[in-house]
Amino acid sequence: MAKPLRIGMIGYGFMGRAHSNGYNRVANFFDLEYHPVLQAACARDAANAKAFADKWGYQSVETDWRKLVERKDIDAVDICTPNNLHKEIALAAAANGKMILCEKPLAMNAAEGEEMCRAVEKAKVLNTVWYNYRRVPAVTFAKQLIDSGKLGKIFHYRANFLQDWTISADLPQGGAALWRLDVAAAGSGVTGDLLAHCIDTAIWLNGGITTVNAMTETFIKERKHNLTGKVEKVGIDDACAFLARFENGSLATFESTRYARGHKALYTFEINGEHASIFWDLHDLHRLQYFDHRDQGTTRGWRSIHVTDGDHPYMGKWWVPGLAIGYEHSFVHQVADFLEGLAKGQPAGPTFRDALETQRVCDAVLASAQSGAWTNV
Amino acid sequence: MAKPLRIGMIGYGFMGRAHSNGYNRVANFFDLEYHPVLQAACARDAANAKAFADKWGYQSVETDWRKLVERKDIDAVDICTPNNLHKEIALAAAANGKMILCEKPLAMNAAEGEEMCRAVEKAKVLNTVWYNYRRVPAVTFAKQLIDSGKLGKIFHYRANFLQDWTISADLPQGGAALWRLDVAAAGSGVTGDLLAHCIDTAIWLNGGITTVNAMTETFIKERKHNLTGKVEKVGIDDACAFLARFENGSLATFESTRYARGHKALYTFEINGEHASIFWDLHDLHRLQYFDHRDQGTTRGWRSIHVTDGDHPYMGKWWVPGLAIGYEHSFVHQVADFLEGLAKGQPAGPTFRDALETQRVCDAVLASAQSGAWTNV
Amino acid sequence: MAKPLRIGMIGYGFMGRAHSNGYNRVANFFDLEYHPVLQAACARDAANAKAFADKWGYQSVETDWRKLVERKDIDAVDICTPNNLHKEIALAAAANGKMILCEKPLAMNAAEGEEMCRAVEKAKVLNTVWYNYRRVPAVTFAKQLIDSGKLGKIFHYRANFLQDWTISADLPQGGAALWRLDVAAAGSGVTGDLLAHCIDTAIWLNGGITTVNAMTETFIKERKHNLTGKVEKVGIDDACAFLARFENGSLATFESTRYARGHKALYTFEINGEHASIFWDLHDLHRLQYFDHRDQGTTRGWRSIHVTDGDHPYMGKWWVPGLAIGYEHSFVHQVADFLEGLAKGQPAGPTFRDALETQRVCDAVLASAQSGAWTNV
Amino acid sequence: MAKPLRIGMIGYGFMGRAHSNGYNRVANFFDLEYHPVLQAACARDAANAKAFADKWGYQSVETDWRKLVERKDIDAVDICTPNNLHKEIALAAAANGKMILCEKPLAMNAAEGEEMCRAVEKAKVLNTVWYNYRRVPAVTFAKQLIDSGKLGKIFHYRANFLQDWTISADLPQGGAALWRLDVAAAGSGVTGDLLAHCIDTAIWLNGGITTVNAMTETFIKERKHNLTGKVEKVGIDDACAFLARFENGSLATFESTRYARGHKALYTFEINGEHASIFWDLHDLHRLQYFDHRDQGTTRGWRSIHVTDGDHPYMGKWWVPGLAIGYEHSFVHQVADFLEGLAKGQPAGPTFRDALETQRVCDAVLASAQSGAWTNV
Repeated sequence: MAKPLRIGMIGYGFMGRAHSNGYNRVANFFDLEYHPVLQAACARDAANAKAFADKWGYQSVETDWRKLVERKDIDAVDICTPNNLHKEIALAAAANGKMILCEKPLAMNAAEGEEMCRAVEKAKVLNTVWYNYRRVPAVTFAKQLIDSGKLGKIFHYRANFLQDWTISADLPQGGAALWRLDVAAAGSGVTGDLLAHCIDTAIWLNGGITTVNAMTETFIKERKHNLTGKVEKVGIDDACAFLARFENGSLATFESTRYARGHKALYTFEINGEHASIFWDLHDLHRLQYFDHRDQGTTRGWRSIHVTDGDHPYMGKWWVPGLAIGYEHSFVHQVADFLEGLAKGQPAGPTFRDALETQRVCDAVLASAQSGAWTNV
Repeated sequence: MAKPLRIGMIGYGFMGRAHSNGYNRVANFFDLEYHPVLQAACARDAANAKAFADKWGYQSVETDWRKLVERKDIDAVDICTPNNLHKEIALAAAANGKMILCEKPLAMNAAEGEEMCRAVEKAKVLNTVWYNYRRVPAVTFAKQLIDSGKLGKIFHYRANFLQDWTISADLPQGGAALWRLDVAAAGSGVTGDLLAHCIDTAIWLNGGITTVNAMTETFIKERKHNLTGKVEKVGIDDACAFLARFENGSLATFESTRYARGHKALYTFEINGEHASIFWDLHDLHRLQYFDHRDQGTTRGWRSIHVTDGDHPYMGKWWVPGLAIGYEHSFVHQVADFLEGLAKGQPAGPTFRDALETQRVCDAVLASAQSGAWTNV
Repeated sequence: MAKPLRIGMIGYGFMGRAHSNGYNRVANFFDLEYHPVLQAACARDAANAKAFADKWGYQSVETDWRKLVERKDIDAVDICTPNNLHKEIALAAAANGKMILCEKPLAMNAAEGEEMCRAVEKAKVLNTVWYNYRRVPAVTFAKQLIDSGKLGKIFHYRANFLQDWTISADLPQGGAALWRLDVAAAGSGVTGDLLAHCIDTAIWLNGGITTVNAMTETFIKERKHNLTGKVEKVGIDDACAFLARFENGSLATFESTRYARGHKALYTFEINGEHASIFWDLHDLHRLQYFDHRDQGTTRGWRSIHVTDGDHPYMGKWWVPGLAIGYEHSFVHQVADFLEGLAKGQPAGPTFRDALETQRVCDAVLASAQSGAWTNV
Repeated sequence: MAKPLRIGMIGYGFMGRAHSNGYNRVANFFDLEYHPVLQAACARDAANAKAFADKWGYQSVETDWRKLVERKDIDAVDICTPNNLHKEIALAAAANGKMILCEKPLAMNAAEGEEMCRAVEKAKVLNTVWYNYRRVPAVTFAKQLIDSGKLGKIFHYRANFLQDWTISADLPQGGAALWRLDVAAAGSGVTGDLLAHCIDTAIWLNGGITTVNAMTETFIKERKHNLTGKVEKVGIDDACAFLARFENGSLATFESTRYARGHKALYTFEINGEHASIFWDLHDLHRLQYFDHRDQGTTRGWRSIHVTDGDHPYMGKWWVPGLAIGYEHSFVHQVADFLEGLAKGQPAGPTFRDALETQRVCDAVLASAQSGAWTNV
């Protein structure tokens, strides 16, 4: 009989839905010692909280996150708020001995992140950050291939995250749906929102980043602010590209923008090793492109691996070979791994400490974009 | 407050899981007047029934489907058994006034199907057959494009369903996981299992098929039978290809096999119209390829439409543009449409009567393969 | 010092250009004992003949092909006329002891083809038919893979040749550029023009075809005839699809049409074997898709082989890896192989006799489309 | 009657072949006032010069380029030597009043390039540099789309040129086939060899580059030198990536390497504009990917334009729609445009002056890689 893990959810937006779906589905597909119980959902507005709780099956609602983190019947707090609230909530949750599942990026900056790490480590509470792309089966499979040595020495890493949803100058900034454009709520633009994903994956797959050199741009300088009703300066980066070097000697380019027409969520990465290369693309997330130089010469070619077989990561839990799963399943997998880590006493990554490393790279990127100089992480 | 629709599920295999997932998830994403309640699961073996019920949340179990279809607390019966039981269960369920959701193909043959249609129509119970691919968003979108007239007069229809899982001569036939290879349980091989999907989609998109000319092949003539333990003749078709003509004057080729190395579930279709063409592929199910001759000449090209925008069919219910959903969502959509049909009194297709038409084509295909002659549907 | 092979070219259209380019370029890239000399070009209209000869460097012109085939200073006759002239010219050329390079299809029908075979075999003159796709490097490479046994037992062959250039009802038939729509000049429509290519490749790669079952359609029943100025019945097939069985036990589908919007010259074939499959596509002719089941399980995938390496067929003669060649090079290769066959006394295929086999299949296809019955080749 | 343009070719390697093929073929496909005559080929080794001249039809040979550039019967000099000879030859050719067609990059650095520009401008001789990719039809078509305003304001430019041929540490540097690895002959590694192509295209399509920030790497530090027989330090850059800003406000990333397993000559570029985006890839050079946001919403998608129609740039000269041409044709086109420029008195780009701009960017890139700082062009 599975043991309950009682979840308190703070936030009810896109990520609130994605995480809730992860909690709701995991038991149908994974055999686990623990099962999530949707204990309480929290939103400042009572009606929003109620509607969200009804939709997803949360048993109660709160309108003050401070109350939620103090509730005795909550085992784990899920932080799905804008970035500027992560630290405060996490510190309170840790102080109350709650496990924490925090949306990415970990914090507004590395200093906040360091404080959060110290808090959870002092409180000895299980913690994780929702860098969900690690658990897309094709990405997890990429990790297996690299760890098995198939790529050999790595020469190059290349990652992009391209979108096109903020090109219109008429789009306002701030408020519920658009806090990602408001620097006060988000901390940064594409760097924290999108490149943070790329950096987390990169560190996981290819090790530490030592130094970076970046440029950023804000194409639309002013937008109406939803909270003030006034046209205000836009403080976030619309686009950011940076060069980097890894500890293993490989070179990297990273780029993200919300001004790339035709791309909705085109997160891609490519790794070139001495023996083999891999390429992945979020728009066709169930495929991994793989080139192995050790294949017989004339038949060498990029292999389009449809990562849907039973012996591919996570896929034995789902349907049959050839049938694709989607974006949302990465969250189900993260829930499953979190619960398994809880049962085994071996925390599943990325922990706050892991995510802090990504935060440090983001900080270095933004500092380099200001100074124009190579900046060590 | 949503009204319950109490489901009695018969079967616990691949399709039992897929349908159950549809019932479990629909309320998290769709706003509906009815919500499914998993009332009872039925399997001959009590342990199997119990395990399945626990996994998916069915509130009770039965080991005799006859009991299940008679239970007063069941509103709708879901038939997920091998094909040879569809008719008997459907007739009993209809006689008890139950709505019926039946796995495809409808029956072992058109004669059985006709009997089933008469039964549900006489009982006036809502009925549907799980030809789920109609509700992959890209396929539904193809239907919208055709209905809007964008393709113009249709010249060609081309559909394949290619797999490679039965190539080994060591694979036995019959029993729980392999009833699809046993002609006594399945009725036919790829014709009823895979081409039935292609035919359902084709009729839906392109209208009635008038005449067919087919060939079939059984590459492995004998296999060990799991139920008898003896090597027995294989009665199913391993491969089937047929030429066809539609009522609208278009020509078609259809092909299915389980002997196409490298293809797991490659269901593809292409339609060539006077003005435009479309192509779809289950392995990349969130894309629709679309060519429009009315585009400006030099910039004409096949458009790879990533069917993940909010104004694409069903997609407004899920995540944000660019984020793909998968195979299983087609069943969620079918549940949603069934429930909406129930609420509005407008049954969602395909009904038993719709599915009977597909059955007639299958019968004609198998007859033609025997006779070698063009056979009218 | 290379020996001259003096060419007499009859015709000056698309194929006249493609062959002339083959003759002109071969010596720059291949080291051969013979080199083509463009001795004479023949066209009924003197101005056309002169313009063509000037463009390509033919040293003289003729307006009567009978004169050309009798000239002592001609070693080989290249027949690029409409199909209805192939037989008569070939018989005369053979009678004059000329080598013959004849455009495909060999003849209007197998009876004519048989007569042509007997003529060249009696005259003992080297002969070939321009089924040029055999010599696209990726196709030649496919042949090597098959011959090496990599595919194992073959289960399926699948070929299409799709175009869209005759959809408009305003397009006339007959005359210089449009003789392919005039049954009197072409003999048939897509069957002889496009499927003949598919059949030649298929027989080369997969062995003999034993029996076929076909359907044809003429979507536009009447068109203005350029030669008479009157609206006349269209006698060719606009579309043709057929089922087939090969001697090796494999099943096939073939389809061709000029009514597939979005496809210009989409000749594709796929072969599914016990161990491996291959797929090729004329629109991306420098790639061969290859799936090998014997690859390690989790890394299996369709390989996109960029057939441009020095150890790929013919490619060592051209540029460097990664740099593609195009359509026209297949003719250069055929010239090179013809000349090498001449030097070695080992005729390069396809000979007239090889091409006759394709003609027999075409005849069976057209007969089956008439009768509706399976027809043996 | 076409007027002759008598070519003196210096060099006989890969580019000597590619240019010679351009000269030999142009008259078969283009109607031009001038036609190239292969007057003389020059190589230091007489046997090499003779073999090359025989292969391509040059009428005479020289072993001293100084003699060649002084010959009265030469109208234009084609410089296909290693980069370190470009300047000296160009200056001498200009002094003798010869037109000059010079391989890229223009020179070892911008200072040399400036000197060369002054020389040809003083001598008033027609001059061009073989940045051939401008004349791949899909690239020329991209230029047309941009110039027509279809993309609108440009936000991003992204170019890569990836190869994998120098990964082995056993590969020596220097000498005939490997001068590109010898810094004394080449001046730089991938920057001058590959990024120069990317930069030329970028400036042509998107205007001037104002500032860059680069990193370079030499993965193999020492290689045997073919000329000395000793292991020597490698002076070239194996890889180079840089950030850039254009005058039009757009941001760019450029990357090139010879250490990207699986890529032979993967030159790609993507441009993201306000209204539309384009993507091109040398490995499938006959396709242009095009996304137009102004397409009707639900049917938007990346269009795979097969740039083979008669109304696509240059394609009316070749075959019929759907039939691809290859890499070498870009040189034929450049010859055709050079000859047309000569006839019309309107020099075809890129001129030496145009190519100097690319050289300045290369210099800035290499300087930035040294200093670590943003460097203005």
